[in-house]
Amino acid sequence: MQPNNNKALQLIKDTIGDEFVLEDQATLLLYSRTTLSKNVMPKAVIKPENSAEIEKIVTIANQYQVQLYPISKGRNWGYGSACAVHEGQVIVDLSRMNRILEVNEQLAYAVIEPGVTQILLHNYLKDKKLPLWLDCTGSGPEASIIGNTLERGFGHTPYGDHFLYSCGMEVVLGDGRKISTGFGHYKNAKATHVFRYGIGPYLDGIFTQSNFGIVTKLGIWLMPEPECCKMFFCAVPKDDDLSKVIETLRPLKLSGQIKSLIHIGNDLRVISSFNRYPWEMAKNKTPLSDDLRNLFCRRGNFGAWNISGAIYGSKSQVKNNKKELKKAMKGLGKLQFIGDKTIALGKKISHILEKSNLLPEFNTKLKALEKVYGLIQGTPTDAFLFGTLWRVKGGLKTNSIDPLDHNAGLLWISPIMPMTGDTAQNLIRMVNPVFKKFDFEPLITVSLITERAMVSVITISFDRENPEEIVKAKECYDELFKLIMEEGYAPYRTNIHTMKKLAGNSQVFWNVTKDIKTALDPNGVISPGRYQPFEFQLTGHELK
Amino acid sequence: MQPNNNKALQLIKDTIGDEFVLEDQATLLLYSRTTLSKNVMPKAVIKPENSAEIEKIVTIANQYQVQLYPISKGRNWGYGSACAVHEGQVIVDLSRMNRILEVNEQLAYAVIEPGVTQILLHNYLKDKKLPLWLDCTGSGPEASIIGNTLERGFGHTPYGDHFLYSCGMEVVLGDGRKISTGFGHYKNAKATHVFRYGIGPYLDGIFTQSNFGIVTKLGIWLMPEPECCKMFFCAVPKDDDLSKVIETLRPLKLSGQIKSLIHIGNDLRVISSFNRYPWEMAKNKTPLSDDLRNLFCRRGNFGAWNISGAIYGSKSQVKNNKKELKKAMKGLGKLQFIGDKTIALGKKISHILEKSNLLPEFNTKLKALEKVYGLIQGTPTDAFLFGTLWRVKGGLKTNSIDPLDHNAGLLWISPIMPMTGDTAQNLIRMVNPVFKKFDFEPLITVSLITERAMVSVITISFDRENPEEIVKAKECYDELFKLIMEEGYAPYRTNIHTMKKLAGNSQVFWNVTKDIKTALDPNGVISPGRYQPFEFQLTGHELK
Repeated sequence: MQPNNNKALQLIKDTIGDEFVLEDQATLLLYSRTTLSKNVMPKAVIKPENSAEIEKIVTIANQYQVQLYPISKGRNWGYGSACAVHEGQVIVDLSRMNRILEVNEQLAYAVIEPGVTQILLHNYLKDKKLPLWLDCTGSGPEASIIGNTLERGFGHTPYGDHFLYSCGMEVVLGDGRKISTGFGHYKNAKATHVFRYGIGPYLDGIFTQSNFGIVTKLGIWLMPEPECCKMFFCAVPKDDDLSKVIETLRPLKLSGQIKSLIHIGNDLRVISSFNRYPWEMAKNKTPLSDDLRNLFCRRGNFGAWNISGAIYGSKSQVKNNKKELKKAMKGLGKLQFIGDKTIALGKKISHILEKSNLLPEFNTKLKALEKVYGLIQGTPTDAFLFGTLWRVKGGLKTNSIDPLDHNAGLLWISPIMPMTGDTAQNLIRMVNPVFKKFDFEPLITVSLITERAMVSVITISFDRENPEEIVKAKECYDELFKLIMEEGYAPYRTNIHTMKKLAGNSQVFWNVTKDIKTALDPNGVISPGRYQPFEFQLTGHELK
Repeated sequence: MQPNNNKALQLIKDTIGDEFVLEDQATLLLYSRTTLSKNVMPKAVIKPENSAEIEKIVTIANQYQVQLYPISKGRNWGYGSACAVHEGQVIVDLSRMNRILEVNEQLAYAVIEPGVTQILLHNYLKDKKLPLWLDCTGSGPEASIIGNTLERGFGHTPYGDHFLYSCGMEVVLGDGRKISTGFGHYKNAKATHVFRYGIGPYLDGIFTQSNFGIVTKLGIWLMPEPECCKMFFCAVPKDDDLSKVIETLRPLKLSGQIKSLIHIGNDLRVISSFNRYPWEMAKNKTPLSDDLRNLFCRRGNFGAWNISGAIYGSKSQVKNNKKELKKAMKGLGKLQFIGDKTIALGKKISHILEKSNLLPEFNTKLKALEKVYGLIQGTPTDAFLFGTLWRVKGGLKTNSIDPLDHNAGLLWISPIMPMTGDTAQNLIRMVNPVFKKFDFEPLITVSLITERAMVSVITISFDRENPEEIVKAKECYDELFKLIMEEGYAPYRTNIHTMKKLAGNSQVFWNVTKDIKTALDPNGVISPGRYQPFEFQLTGHELK
């Protein structure tokens, strides 16, 4: 059978209704947008409503050799947004599948569909007054929980490793079979969403960062609301202090004393969270001059490195923990704690200042602080989205801070490293000159995401209206990517244009994933190219 | 090519040396032993020394259609010991591969081979005075760490979920390819043993409870020795209190206040840990009479349910936690804490008592206590092994407490349940009458193994010298297995004779695992039948 998109799309229309198969240019352009160096045009966008429809769509796709590319909400900022890896694929937009199927208060979990956003589940929990938190990633209220989990994203609370806190999947495989993982495939199973592994091979991992199937349902664990929560901050003055910072914090992560993600942002990254590039002051020159950099640091009281994290527990646990952390982090700088009371007091002062129109900067900062505090407590906020607009020129045309609405240029590269001071310092020494070479600001965070590993999220923010800048950004990215792979710091996820680079010098691993792909999706209908650096021979063709 | 064991074994001899290919009857009998209803005779036992030899062996096995069955140390008590699923398979005993390849003190992990036992790594850490603990399972000092991890076993400390605390595998697949997971397949990778997922599909889970390959190397995370550790106990008087116990403990597990496994043993299970069946007092009658049961309970101060667990942290954390636990568990019974000082004091008293030959029971109990305390601190002990000998008749012929040396009859069945009081009580209500019907004592523990799930380990201890008892034990097991599957409490692992029962009423899940098996081991040379409830058509045959 030859590929036949048109025939397939007609059959899909018959299945899910004409209005949910979109082929008009305006829609396709909307879905083609990225913050990367290149947009990717889809063939069509289809919007199924439930997993039964997905099963039918996958069957049709197999029959007519159509390439599907499922997305949940497409908020994959900096890595490709809603775009497929290749042009001409059919985007399967799962946003209509936004049912919260179950929330179990006693056992602290939820079962959701791919279209459930962070804000949807958050509001559900608030409305029902359930003392449960979801862990939120920084990609904003409208990001899909399942989407981020399958990309193995991270959030900020002790439940930050999203895949780790998921349990029990339903997946429609590339060959059309529907499978439930864990114990979920047994009739009457009671432990599907409380015990990850089930019995026999534990499969869930192969459905993350892969293209073997479409996940249509997922159990996620929720964090019981603690009695007390305090956010902490510490600004460290010198660039060279990063090594000391990591060495001081590692034992606190390893011992479990700090269970949140610990965020360590450089001054530029923090400046970009609160401001947009000062085009006027910089007389349109890039990168940011040392003078302006220093000015912004002084204004904001930012250090060369800025640590933030949180502690949780009963009041007496938190009190005890605060004391111990102050002692342990004494050598780094002044450790400041912020809790509900501080935020409330800030709001009061802000109210007075607003009335009298004094210190408008205080208000901006307080609002940003509130948003970060929200993330620490499982409230989805756009705290980290504003930073994506750093290099956007001119006034913002809309209130939206969706980077796509402003054609923001943004490339993220996220190497994983063992949590040692030398490693972090080595990375910075490597990365800074590359940014200098291409006239971008090195916007860098180093986050302690597990007890032993840290990820650096390196941001290339560029003017996407300027074709030369796009080329430079891509070159900068490629050089950084090459460097981190050579150094042995492969990334924990990557963007749609970089999949082929993942092959590296590695053969067997990717051949094995290819063999599993062939076993579960013989015609290669699901997301060809996604986390698939090899050329894929459609074995299904030969079998027919 | 027809299967040809003899030709293959000759080639294997040429590869690894004659002395490591054992075919004599005495050896085969030794490896055929189980505690189950039926022994399983292997064709031969081979003992490779490294992964290069394993690659060669697997290649030979593929060529001559030989069925291999890898074991690490074969201490899979109650589930099949060192035995294969089917007769006539070649046991690949990995015990010679016992190298500790790396211990990273800073990042608290070790990289080991399958033959590394709990005691080997423990002693290594002690000898080097490294402040790191490994989590131990109760299967004794000689159990393999990798063996238990691949079977997804559990231990007692906060690192009790062994697979969860493993990171970075090397696997020789059934088709002879060698693969490294996580980032391990990249040249110069630095984060192989600190970040589980790598990039792309996360594969490790499919190599647990499966038969796709032979794991030849594994990274495991070690727990940094805490400043302070206290074990706690609480005896709960009434059988019906189990529901209250679970409801009281769940919030403490969910909030992370208790991070250890919490063990809840019924009176009979605890009695069997300290005593063997009192054949004389019982006048050779089984099961244990209520009078004797009560007598042993009074002597040992055992409750109907006996809770134990541990808390860890800095001195001030533990002090604070103790106070909070006492408050939270007030309604259950007297909560007792034991730490280093108590154990030291006990030893002193014991020394005096021993000299004066007073209270020998105090000494027995203290020794058992010390062993449990050891497990809580990552010291491998035989604390839980003694219980396997419960129904062995007559005096023990050797000092060994290896159940195989005493032909002990032992079947374990281990359903997973959501952590609610009703569920636990429901299980007990279901299980007790079955034991009564077959004249065995219901030896039951309910362990809170994760924040949301509990496992009940139900022991059928029987006289394996008595053929009638063997039949009864098997019938009892089958009836229990049917019950838990019907009720939706599938087990987290199972024994070699029960693999086919795992099919249940489930089709797609097992077909998918079969397809992955076919992709990675097309000739089905690795552990046929292991976690493989379907009939496996050797597709490789047709392809040739």
